[in-house]
Amino acid sequence: MRELGEFAVIDRITAQHAQAPHVLLGPGDDAALVAAPDGRFVVSTDMLVEGRHFRRDWSDPVDIGRKAIAQNAADIVAMGARPTAFVVALGCPADTPVEVLEGIAAGMAAEAGRAGGSVAGGDLVRSEQLVVSVTAFGDLGGRAAILRSGAVAGDIVAVAGDLGWSAAGLAVLSGGADASDPAFAQALAAHRVPQPPYAAVLDVGGDVAPTALTDVSDGLLADLGHLATASGVSIDVHRAALADADLAAVAALLDADAAQWILAGGEDHAFAGTWPAGTALPPGWRPIGVVAAGSGVTVDGAAPTGGTGWESFRGADATSGHPNR
Amino acid sequence: MRELGEFAVIDRITAQHAQAPHVLLGPGDDAALVAAPDGRFVVSTDMLVEGRHFRRDWSDPVDIGRKAIAQNAADIVAMGARPTAFVVALGCPADTPVEVLEGIAAGMAAEAGRAGGSVAGGDLVRSEQLVVSVTAFGDLGGRAAILRSGAVAGDIVAVAGDLGWSAAGLAVLSGGADASDPAFAQALAAHRVPQPPYAAVLDVGGDVAPTALTDVSDGLLADLGHLATASGVSIDVHRAALADADLAAVAALLDADAAQWILAGGEDHAFAGTWPAGTALPPGWRPIGVVAAGSGVTVDGAAPTGGTGWESFRGADATSGHPNR
Repeated sequence: MRELGEFAVIDRITAQHAQAPHVLLGPGDDAALVAAPDGRFVVSTDMLVEGRHFRRDWSDPVDIGRKAIAQNAADIVAMGARPTAFVVALGCPADTPVEVLEGIAAGMAAEAGRAGGSVAGGDLVRSEQLVVSVTAFGDLGGRAAILRSGAVAGDIVAVAGDLGWSAAGLAVLSGGADASDPAFAQALAAHRVPQPPYAAVLDVGGDVAPTALTDVSDGLLADLGHLATASGVSIDVHRAALADADLAAVAALLDADAAQWILAGGEDHAFAGTWPAGTALPPGWRPIGVVAAGSGVTVDGAAPTGGTGWESFRGADATSGHPNR
Repeated sequence: MRELGEFAVIDRITAQHAQAPHVLLGPGDDAALVAAPDGRFVVSTDMLVEGRHFRRDWSDPVDIGRKAIAQNAADIVAMGARPTAFVVALGCPADTPVEVLEGIAAGMAAEAGRAGGSVAGGDLVRSEQLVVSVTAFGDLGGRAAILRSGAVAGDIVAVAGDLGWSAAGLAVLSGGADASDPAFAQALAAHRVPQPPYAAVLDVGGDVAPTALTDVSDGLLADLGHLATASGVSIDVHRAALADADLAAVAALLDADAAQWILAGGEDHAFAGTWPAGTALPPGWRPIGVVAAGSGVTVDGAAPTGGTGWESFRGADATSGHPNR
């Protein structure tokens, strides 16, 4: 990296990847130019820090790149928008092998493509830790954004995508279990590269739509808590509806509690939404609870026990099961 | 910071600052929503790392926030676009006083307002170093973007804004000079908070426009080099046109070379553009050279001596005068 210099590395990374149709001008000038067909764009930004959001001994560079894009794309889709483009600022030590940066860039390009966009530009600087900051853009196609604040009493609470598997993978890695055991493969993959079910939101079609929507990044109960607060409602989650026999089998091997992973694990970037009572839920969605008047989130009518989710600055002291974030 | 937790800090920071008209939905949901009136948006991202792009003992939090926004806004304006909004990802140690973050946020809000936008959203995570990643957006108002690639032989090369003052301030701070000496006040201010002359680009009016444009972030010769390469031309800069008696007086106090600061200093975020021969340059612009056929950048017809600019990963070994970046 030090040998090549910033500009050469940027050239080398950006030259390899094609641009999506929305990127009107890609890397190489003072700024990029991106199409915003409906006259607005949705934007979200997330920073990932080595040792906290990922570890190089647990994830390869391609996985790190995919995860960084996936968690940002999930925020875009959680507004009901279709991802169009991403920009990336990356800080790394001067002795970082250029192959690591190329791997991250390749992972980013792959996940950006899966989400529907491409990496339109970036910045590369020197830092002590590897730090990846992604900003994601999306287009609403003329529709209203789906906010966290639209839930009303009587709505169905539903989820699309897996829950708890990323936490399970983290438990395998941090607990010293045998990571080569095939029984842990699904959990490890989920932790290394979340797979947000973009299509479950974007390809619903017809007249049905969630009244409120979020992605599950901090933990199901925490994120439903944000949604309930924004909407001025309460939410009750049904534990039985969240049961996952495969995840329970993994938990049994580690003497862990699968329900805790599901309720508080976060990082799977599933989508949680509320739907009008009586809605025939679209493919990929399963009902897990109901919205009522009041405030707060309960599980089978009772206050949840254990940690309810993750906050960056308090998590290491809490019981959320995310010591590495 | 650790006591308050991420969400409380974000609430505390974002609640204090009003949003610009282009921000249709600010912080608090999975993503923000920003207007893009002409169906496109310009976007640029830059990361600032403590100890490299700024030092807490040299700059107060408000200055750091202003600088982070200014350098990104300059990239937007260097495309001919008007800044509309910014998003910010910030990593910091858990023991960072919340007042530091509030200061950075206040500086960001102030400079965003000066540039014409506001901070629409962000992310706050824990990291070992203070890292600030800003992504800036702008609107072209239906015009074509002004690229680096539009210069043609015969064009006038002109500059708007100060050059070399940021490097002078850095020399004061890094050389152990008396920073309280009033003779250094202008240089220190320029280093701590660059003042890109946004209006010189955005309020030109009439039919005149640069054929190519960039901001001076890496150093005048380096950035003109990028422009010359993109346009497939050569550029000759006239040393006499760049002379600055006030800066020379500062240089004399430090036994330094003002011309080197001007040619290679960077970080002032002045604008350098090429204009058709015969153009009556708009207010704020001064001619400094000419475009010709060929390639490369010369000073009074000769290859430049000394460092020509800054690259993040090689700068500490070069002679660019930016040991702290």
